[in-house]
Amino acid sequence: MYIVPEKEIAGLMTRKAAFAAVEKVFAAMASDDAYNFPVVREAIDHEDALYGFKGGFDRAGLTLGLKAGGYWPNNLEKRGLINHQSTVFLFDPDTGKAKAMVGGNLLTALRTAAASSVSIKHLARNDAKVIGIIGAGHQATFQLRAALEQRPFEKVIGWNYHPEMLPNIEKVAAEAGVPFEAVDLPGMAEADVILSITSAFAPSLLVDHVSPGTHVACMGTDTKGKQEVEAELLVKASVFTDEVAQSISIGEAQHAVAQGLIRESDVAQIGAVINGTNPGRTSADQITLFDGTGVGLQDLAVAASVVDLAVAQGIAIEVDF
Amino acid sequence: MYIVPEKEIAGLMTRKAAFAAVEKVFAAMASDDAYNFPVVREAIDHEDALYGFKGGFDRAGLTLGLKAGGYWPNNLEKRGLINHQSTVFLFDPDTGKAKAMVGGNLLTALRTAAASSVSIKHLARNDAKVIGIIGAGHQATFQLRAALEQRPFEKVIGWNYHPEMLPNIEKVAAEAGVPFEAVDLPGMAEADVILSITSAFAPSLLVDHVSPGTHVACMGTDTKGKQEVEAELLVKASVFTDEVAQSISIGEAQHAVAQGLIRESDVAQIGAVINGTNPGRTSADQITLFDGTGVGLQDLAVAASVVDLAVAQGIAIEVDF
Repeated sequence: MYIVPEKEIAGLMTRKAAFAAVEKVFAAMASDDAYNFPVVREAIDHEDALYGFKGGFDRAGLTLGLKAGGYWPNNLEKRGLINHQSTVFLFDPDTGKAKAMVGGNLLTALRTAAASSVSIKHLARNDAKVIGIIGAGHQATFQLRAALEQRPFEKVIGWNYHPEMLPNIEKVAAEAGVPFEAVDLPGMAEADVILSITSAFAPSLLVDHVSPGTHVACMGTDTKGKQEVEAELLVKASVFTDEVAQSISIGEAQHAVAQGLIRESDVAQIGAVINGTNPGRTSADQITLFDGTGVGLQDLAVAASVVDLAVAQGIAIEVDF
Repeated sequence: MYIVPEKEIAGLMTRKAAFAAVEKVFAAMASDDAYNFPVVREAIDHEDALYGFKGGFDRAGLTLGLKAGGYWPNNLEKRGLINHQSTVFLFDPDTGKAKAMVGGNLLTALRTAAASSVSIKHLARNDAKVIGIIGAGHQATFQLRAALEQRPFEKVIGWNYHPEMLPNIEKVAAEAGVPFEAVDLPGMAEADVILSITSAFAPSLLVDHVSPGTHVACMGTDTKGKQEVEAELLVKASVFTDEVAQSISIGEAQHAVAQGLIRESDVAQIGAVINGTNPGRTSADQITLFDGTGVGLQDLAVAASVVDLAVAQGIAIEVDF
């Protein structure tokens, strides 16, 4: 079996490879070739940690396994380690034997950014010029960097609850040679694409902040109670997601569904758009919304991709297991 | 992090170490220092395989992680590999970082055998002389070998649905210098301890086959529908288990509970007997029954034990992960 340590991932994995892996597995999910297992998530009552497993099987890509790990909120302060810690384990679906072990920290950031990028590719207007971002934390920089590759954006506008963090975003825009402007939330009406990547429990982005024709990617809501956008926005928008069951229970769609504003059947899989069985955007003034909840199959897909790269480049550690 | 490949386990792990690890974690479960996570078990529709994860956390032993793997029924015939394939992954509960990866195949057999042995130590009569075994497959040999160390047994009696497999058992008895006799099921009335380790879906051992004072360990039932002993036996016996929730849902107690013959509160944790908070056997003619369903914490406990041994003996492979 192969081992690809966390420290090797940055030198191996590209945004392009992450994009390709995530796009492919979203498509496989929509054609019922891939599915996610029930998620295990436990507050273990030690170090305030959340720990669990996200597994799945992609019959098309023959990728089987899980991501294990979670959130250790004291890591950074106590030990200088990042708080999100995860490891991906791949298994041979023909035999059940362990096949690879891969550091999952950077991969998680890349696969999450790839998901919103996939949604931009398939749902944003081709003539999108202004991208807005709500949130300015670590993950926001990954989101924006990947998104800027999907359209020839001419301006980045940003809002964050803590405005002193906006330079994180400004720096990414500058790297890409795109001007940046801090705006208030109503200012988001200028955007053709809006990325929301916060861990908020109350909506920031309201219906009135979103212009016709905009594509909104909500990437922050992954737990019951979290919310980034006003529930009514999901009525006005055509709603897409990675996994419908997760979207309506712990994703951004949970609120609109709970309030009876939309039904489960109003939420479509992004994979169906990739496969061409759902038309996706059908007009220039339609609002599209992608609810990125994050699924285990994304982790497995990028991990399998990085193992291939590591083996090809002689970087994977081979262990006779 | 450390890697202990499957091929090293046989040279490292002893029945004594497995017994100690399992006894300790059963005790921790009963004192609420350790708990198992929800089990994930999926028929993945590929190679007829069952795949899943059994995780848990032992706060007392600071053991966190999971066993991943499952059952690949075509392995042996198609590839000369064993059909049950599993790997144990341990995590550092202080940081969430991967700590060890351990081959889980032999460990699974050893921890299952250790469970029935723990039940014999704590529930069988001290003067037990005859041990009966129902089942004669691969796992039965592990069960009997471990059980024979718990009391000075003078005779092994055995029954199997396929009698031609009984020599497997006879061989283990011979190794231990104990005479063996094949019996019919009513012949089990001679036994002071009965191990049942089959994958049957209908009871073999009936109430009439069990004499007063016997300890019965039911080790085969781990799925809805499986059954090894007549449900009425659980009325007559004092019932103990590794984990009550599992015992009454997928373990041997599922039938007696479903039929209203016993209640959940009639099933006690073996760990409480180990801890001394449950008296266990209180008379020489009491029938005791242990329902061994198999929990992730057992796997983690024996894996942690083998990692310690492997590190101490310089056999663990250290990887900078």
